[in-house]
Amino acid sequence: MNITLEQAETAINAAKTKAKEINTLMNIAVVDAGANLIAFVHMDEAWLGSIDIAQRKAKTARYFNMNTGEIGKLSQPGGSLYNIEHSNGGLITFPGGVCIEDASGNIIGAIGVSGSTVENDHLVAQSGAESVK
Amino acid sequence: MNITLEQAETAINAAKTKAKEINTLMNIAVVDAGANLIAFVHMDEAWLGSIDIAQRKAKTARYFNMNTGEIGKLSQPGGSLYNIEHSNGGLITFPGGVCIEDASGNIIGAIGVSGSTVENDHLVAQSGAESVK
Amino acid sequence: MNITLEQAETAINAAKTKAKEINTLMNIAVVDAGANLIAFVHMDEAWLGSIDIAQRKAKTARYFNMNTGEIGKLSQPGGSLYNIEHSNGGLITFPGGVCIEDASGNIIGAIGVSGSTVENDHLVAQSGAESVK
Amino acid sequence: MNITLEQAETAINAAKTKAKEINTLMNIAVVDAGANLIAFVHMDEAWLGSIDIAQRKAKTARYFNMNTGEIGKLSQPGGSLYNIEHSNGGLITFPGGVCIEDASGNIIGAIGVSGSTVENDHLVAQSGAESVK
Repeated sequence: MNITLEQAETAINAAKTKAKEINTLMNIAVVDAGANLIAFVHMDEAWLGSIDIAQRKAKTARYFNMNTGEIGKLSQPGGSLYNIEHSNGGLITFPGGVCIEDASGNIIGAIGVSGSTVENDHLVAQSGAESVK
Repeated sequence: MNITLEQAETAINAAKTKAKEINTLMNIAVVDAGANLIAFVHMDEAWLGSIDIAQRKAKTARYFNMNTGEIGKLSQPGGSLYNIEHSNGGLITFPGGVCIEDASGNIIGAIGVSGSTVENDHLVAQSGAESVK
Repeated sequence: MNITLEQAETAINAAKTKAKEINTLMNIAVVDAGANLIAFVHMDEAWLGSIDIAQRKAKTARYFNMNTGEIGKLSQPGGSLYNIEHSNGGLITFPGGVCIEDASGNIIGAIGVSGSTVENDHLVAQSGAESVK
Repeated sequence: MNITLEQAETAINAAKTKAKEINTLMNIAVVDAGANLIAFVHMDEAWLGSIDIAQRKAKTARYFNMNTGEIGKLSQPGGSLYNIEHSNGGLITFPGGVCIEDASGNIIGAIGVSGSTVENDHLVAQSGAESVK
């Protein structure tokens, strides 16, 4: 099972709506089950450096089938996955990357959001992911 | 002058409509005046390798303010720009990248399309670019 | 709004003057609003490794519209942006990168300085940025 | 012997003057004897893609102590240096890169120019290089 562009656009629109609701400017990326980029938007005046980070968060979430923030807990100094960020051309392991599941609970892709605090990034990503179920 | 997300989405939607009209499956990317990614879509079942190519075409068009195919004519063996593709982390110089101008003729970004023949790629990119003027 | 070469040269000259005043040898880079390199100088005998760092500091400041040192506070182990340096092909998040604003307060680019202590790097960058306002 | 920043700035100013004289918009880079970037300017509205190319031309000229166009003659299909552009992280081998010599004929650096035809690029680079002797 793989995410469709229609589902990716649903996720992006839901995320964009949530971003506006909480007065943030976000970069939002959706990848498919193969971790390939399916859709992306950069809201006007959002951080340019977050164009790359949003995409890396989406990929990182799908690479390990978990929220990026969960990986970040394990990649700290002394942690079991210390400096895992060096793999795969550069991972981002702080919150804002969330897997997208279909109604049956299959992971069909992931969404990555960057542009505000990590709490806001995660909240917006969650809104996007939930809109697809 | 820089492209807005609304303009980028107009371009992508026009390109998507044209892609469907000619029965192709495209990857479509829009960059701003600074060559940063603003919006992207991958149509279902389009080539995965073209996700990257569409983005490089958009950047290449903006980098030199001309259609990518024009650069490709000059980068052939014996041509004045032979192997220019090695610059900027990798250019794509065959057709499918087109600058986006505003109503006053200012270049505000570029669109890159990849997924079919270069003729079709260019046609779809052109449709996207023209929708913004 | 985007920085001009004349403004970039003003910033670099002001930074160079400050660098000499405090007896340091600096690398100084200015990027535009799109994070593209506009001007650069390497003072004689300044560190060679700082040629790259100065450019990354300028880009990092513009990528997130804040001083690089602010990002570095958040990217420490346990911090909310831990290992953000892996994004965008490699960020530099210690002090020495400062946004450049025009007289109206619009961010039109950024300056990055590297070659001494981070305190000196920041001081020199600040001098450059302020000369443009 | 190594180029100084003062000499590099002399070369860049001479090149800039020549660029204006022939109505072109150039990116101009100077590297030292170690092929490290010493000074760079991007003239307003010059091609963004040439920021990278100007630097690669300067490096390529110094890497092999010859004009970039000379290398390009040898890197064609069937040539003795076919596809040498793949080395050193990406070379540019069409005209516009010229070595800088001091009054005694020692190579102390190189200048790379990009933004117009390769003939104009070479002409402007030559003007810069000659201003240092």
